[in-house]
Amino acid sequence: MKQARHPEPHEMTLIAVMGALSDPIRVGLVRVLSDGRERGWGQLRAPVAKSTLSHHLRILRDAGVTRTRQEGTRCYVELRRADLESRFPGLLDAVLNAAHADDVGLQVGLNDTAS
Amino acid sequence: MKQARHPEPHEMTLIAVMGALSDPIRVGLVRVLSDGRERGWGQLRAPVAKSTLSHHLRILRDAGVTRTRQEGTRCYVELRRADLESRFPGLLDAVLNAAHADDVGLQVGLNDTAS
Repeated sequence: MKQARHPEPHEMTLIAVMGALSDPIRVGLVRVLSDGRERGWGQLRAPVAKSTLSHHLRILRDAGVTRTRQEGTRCYVELRRADLESRFPGLLDAVLNAAHADDVGLQVGLNDTAS
Repeated sequence: MKQARHPEPHEMTLIAVMGALSDPIRVGLVRVLSDGRERGWGQLRAPVAKSTLSHHLRILRDAGVTRTRQEGTRCYVELRRADLESRFPGLLDAVLNAAHADDVGLQVGLNDTAS
């Protein structure tokens, strides 16, 4: 993967962000990343094929929800919490709180043997 | 249309609501309804075919975002603001504020000659 292009905050759209956050796997990924730590893709555990996980991560990135960074052969991802909050105040917290209350996205987690 | 089944608040899901609110026409419909008034479908103006508008209204209804009522041959729709707020606190306002700030959904409005 080349260093991917990420939308600047002013390029983020509400519709793309809402679409990115309308899937339980993607909500789960956002929940895992909501502690603010950057994670290697290999640390992310989800009940989907790696190609599907990669697809979900691309949708999150293209919407501006996450930032992906490549280092050698490894990819890392982090939540763009500040950018989201500046563009769509209150939205991410409302989604995270609702996901927490309803146990949405629990199928996503972190691998014990992190890389 | 028969009186449609609407999800009870506890049946609403975050994923369905996020999906319902990830389309500019549907966000526009919610904006139009956000004044709390029930509207006849004939009052709603959107740059789509009537069948497409009906499809969008069904998605909103099935997700629990709106309530549809039939009276004779006419259908009416209103926003379920209180139910949404109780289930997903802060979510609707965050979406409405973002839509307002970004002019999302402005292609939807009310017909002057209301019915």
